[in-house]
Amino acid sequence: MINNEKLLQQIEFIVEIDKLKTVFRKSYILGTNRKENDAEHSWHLAMMAILLQEYANEEIDLLYVIKMVLLHDIIEIDAGDTFCYDQQGNLEKSVKEQAAADRIYSMLPQDQGTELLKIWQEFEHGNSAEAKFARALDRLMPLLHNYFAEGKSWLENNITVSQVLDRNAHIGDGSITLWEYVQDIIEDSVTKGYLQTNKK
Amino acid sequence: MINNEKLLQQIEFIVEIDKLKTVFRKSYILGTNRKENDAEHSWHLAMMAILLQEYANEEIDLLYVIKMVLLHDIIEIDAGDTFCYDQQGNLEKSVKEQAAADRIYSMLPQDQGTELLKIWQEFEHGNSAEAKFARALDRLMPLLHNYFAEGKSWLENNITVSQVLDRNAHIGDGSITLWEYVQDIIEDSVTKGYLQTNKK
Repeated sequence: MINNEKLLQQIEFIVEIDKLKTVFRKSYILGTNRKENDAEHSWHLAMMAILLQEYANEEIDLLYVIKMVLLHDIIEIDAGDTFCYDQQGNLEKSVKEQAAADRIYSMLPQDQGTELLKIWQEFEHGNSAEAKFARALDRLMPLLHNYFAEGKSWLENNITVSQVLDRNAHIGDGSITLWEYVQDIIEDSVTKGYLQTNKK
Repeated sequence: MINNEKLLQQIEFIVEIDKLKTVFRKSYILGTNRKENDAEHSWHLAMMAILLQEYANEEIDLLYVIKMVLLHDIIEIDAGDTFCYDQQGNLEKSVKEQAAADRIYSMLPQDQGTELLKIWQEFEHGNSAEAKFARALDRLMPLLHNYFAEGKSWLENNITVSQVLDRNAHIGDGSITLWEYVQDIIEDSVTKGYLQTNKK
């Protein structure tokens, strides 16, 4: 058998992250009744980074943005998905996610684990142009899913327009153009009854 | 409403490729009875490109490899997944896939559509270091899935060791190290009964 401890460690990590395909989110795949999982979601964000990079407010390093969005949810293998409108869940989230990051990234050879951990921390808390743009994409996609699915997950979870506006305003930090587009589809969602103005 | 025809076209494409999450492959997600879809698979390959780039035979442009693996299966939205051991299916595959590429990539603004189409063609037929490494990753992942799932999909589809060796030898064109590793797990799979020597 091959005697390459480093490669075997990397393969073990690659096999471990297969689990991201079993962490489900609140959004539905369009035209289906199946909820999206974190791995598919991360793929979609990476494609969006390639397609929408011109709308970032500042110049970005595309490779770095792609790395961020590809790995931003890996910690949810242990910590699970927290619905973005769940206030209590979001308070407990950071402790669980830090523990997850420590366990999962320590599976890798040290230099690689440290690099990926740093990229994740930058995505979570950083002020770089890349972090701001990556977070904007991460917020844009569920809005598209809801808008093109006629508000399916918003209506199911009794979400109001003011919650959506509050939660997503920071899209503008990453991209003013995308935030303008989002305000349009939110307005249109209210008009069409996909999004309610008050809780029911 | 926002008056940005280009952005609206890009959003339409982003919504269209949501369908990749409904194209299923032959491999199973580890520890489950659910087959993997193309979007999750593409995410996994992009993570592998980041993690295993040091094993490419030649120096590679990582961003280009990542773009390749992220979009390599988008044509399957129209053309469907062809099992790699299906000889007849593989003969008809290229015509269907070219038609799919023409339809799907023409949804994008022209410069972007042309760029993505070129990347896909390079993945399919190219001789660049990037294409060879990307194809090696695309072959490695189903081998890992089968090996760590005790041959689940190989046994189900009556696949023999000689088929697996023939179909995957070109991994060595992208990475000699990864091909050595693959030969080890194939040998071990035969020993453990995950992979048969003759058709049943």
